[in-house]
Amino acid sequence: MPVAVDAMGGDHGHSVVVEGAVLAAREFGIEAILVGREEVIAPFLSKFDYNKDLISIKHATQVVSMEDAPSDAVRKKKDSSIKAAFELVRDRAASSVVSAGNSGATMAEALFTLGRIKGVRPAIATIMPTLKDPVLMIDVGANVDCKPSHLYQFAIMGDVFVREHLKRESPAIGLLSIGEEDTKGNLQVKQAYDMIAGSNLNFIGNVEGRDVFKGDVDVVVCDGFVGNICLKLSEGLAESIIHMLRQEIEGSLMASMGYALTKKAFKRFKKKIDYAEYGGAPLLGIKGIAIICHGRSTARAIKNAIKVANDLAGLRLNEKLEQGLYMANG
Amino acid sequence: MPVAVDAMGGDHGHSVVVEGAVLAAREFGIEAILVGREEVIAPFLSKFDYNKDLISIKHATQVVSMEDAPSDAVRKKKDSSIKAAFELVRDRAASSVVSAGNSGATMAEALFTLGRIKGVRPAIATIMPTLKDPVLMIDVGANVDCKPSHLYQFAIMGDVFVREHLKRESPAIGLLSIGEEDTKGNLQVKQAYDMIAGSNLNFIGNVEGRDVFKGDVDVVVCDGFVGNICLKLSEGLAESIIHMLRQEIEGSLMASMGYALTKKAFKRFKKKIDYAEYGGAPLLGIKGIAIICHGRSTARAIKNAIKVANDLAGLRLNEKLEQGLYMANG
Repeated sequence: MPVAVDAMGGDHGHSVVVEGAVLAAREFGIEAILVGREEVIAPFLSKFDYNKDLISIKHATQVVSMEDAPSDAVRKKKDSSIKAAFELVRDRAASSVVSAGNSGATMAEALFTLGRIKGVRPAIATIMPTLKDPVLMIDVGANVDCKPSHLYQFAIMGDVFVREHLKRESPAIGLLSIGEEDTKGNLQVKQAYDMIAGSNLNFIGNVEGRDVFKGDVDVVVCDGFVGNICLKLSEGLAESIIHMLRQEIEGSLMASMGYALTKKAFKRFKKKIDYAEYGGAPLLGIKGIAIICHGRSTARAIKNAIKVANDLAGLRLNEKLEQGLYMANG
Repeated sequence: MPVAVDAMGGDHGHSVVVEGAVLAAREFGIEAILVGREEVIAPFLSKFDYNKDLISIKHATQVVSMEDAPSDAVRKKKDSSIKAAFELVRDRAASSVVSAGNSGATMAEALFTLGRIKGVRPAIATIMPTLKDPVLMIDVGANVDCKPSHLYQFAIMGDVFVREHLKRESPAIGLLSIGEEDTKGNLQVKQAYDMIAGSNLNFIGNVEGRDVFKGDVDVVVCDGFVGNICLKLSEGLAESIIHMLRQEIEGSLMASMGYALTKKAFKRFKKKIDYAEYGGAPLLGIKGIAIICHGRSTARAIKNAIKVANDLAGLRLNEKLEQGLYMANG
């Protein structure tokens, strides 16, 4: 089944999204439906060389902007590209949704059109690079006020995702806190600690901020407020460090010569920490598969997100999430 | 008046602390009282060449370990070096305290021996490097469960600290959240937003994780749980990035040659992001001056912390904090 791709979202508009779908068709042979204003998408798409059987267009007249409030988007824009994309999944015409548009509206549409797994708070998970293998952080922004039981659900969903998608047996689950001892943390985290510790998960206890990038934990569980701040702080810090290092290097002739020689290493490093490699953040806990992409996504990021969406649908991830959550709740 | 320095704390024990005091005496002519076990401190101190008028020892028999619970340290270790250091301030024999020991115990002793400014939740502030001037983050660990009114107090204390110590007029105060709009954030942050916006502070609104290191904000306000995670995440990420970059560079001969040329730039950069430059984190809101140093502090970090403690005492920072808080509360 094709992946429904919201072609109107993202800071760069339809162009990178269309190109991303073309790349996914070419490189992986994945089918996609580009959802949005046909008069914009079709002429742009026609410039590319691709297998016509793999990419189609589903017309939708409205566009949700980055400024639209999620609830307004759901109620007032009845023919938006985001809504139409989720309707394709609801009607079993698509396997999954990829959107680089307004992430709040994408979540709201997912909940409105597909609904959530019973009793679950959907969460956004994101894959981050570390010194070893990438780590999954969950939640990075869907829920800003979480109960301890929500953190427990995130732990279960993170475990299923890492086992199924990243193919790791018995993922190490860590709870983000301010010290390793079980007495450390705020009330929410201390209570979540007891719930996760009492489960069958491979819980390694609290992890601190500095442990996230070491690579000794597979899933870092946190509430969406903390996770979103951590995610953006990491992006900002990585950019700043590279910027500061360049400034220091440019300040000296010798170092400039050195930089010419290290340039490839810098490039490989930047690729390693580039979010585009990981193809967006899955929204877990809804009745379907949806990948939320960075507004700044490149065509390569969209391509990778389409691949992830297609893979997750093929894995029947949602059934496995439901099973995991059901078993945990007895 | 001398600075009371807990000579028994820190991962490296008395050696770096004693050396740090010697360096502060030599470079800045600052007086210090080394507090702790005289039989350990005296022989070590005697190896250094320094002005004997500037450094003295105050004997205390007990040592608070990193593992001691703060409440136990206060109740059971009546002759600890941390307690004795704060007693020197209480008895007006020292201007301030510097400790690289158990930070929870240091806070607990500060509250027990000196007390807090009326109605205030003391908070730990830390200075972090950015692309422009350093930013103050407050709170980074003293309070894990904050009310909105506490965040407001942190904003006031951060404002006073940056004006007085960093000599910036009308510091830009930002509230750490997950979006710039005032509707973004968890309940705690949304309520704090209204309180700070209604004050005389130069409040620039919410700032996101990625804004912290840009340098366009002087004070980032957050609760101690979030702040502590951010602080440690930043440390861990900076270390990981440098490590990953080195790995990439070492993987290629050309790049290795380049690295030899960029080495100095790397060194300058590392110095720029080194916490040791900033000399520890002030504990604001107690009735006195105390600087909490990183357990891993080097002698240089201790030296800088002693300088900051001495400067803050000279500025009568505490009176100014009291005034700021008093005026804000009407």
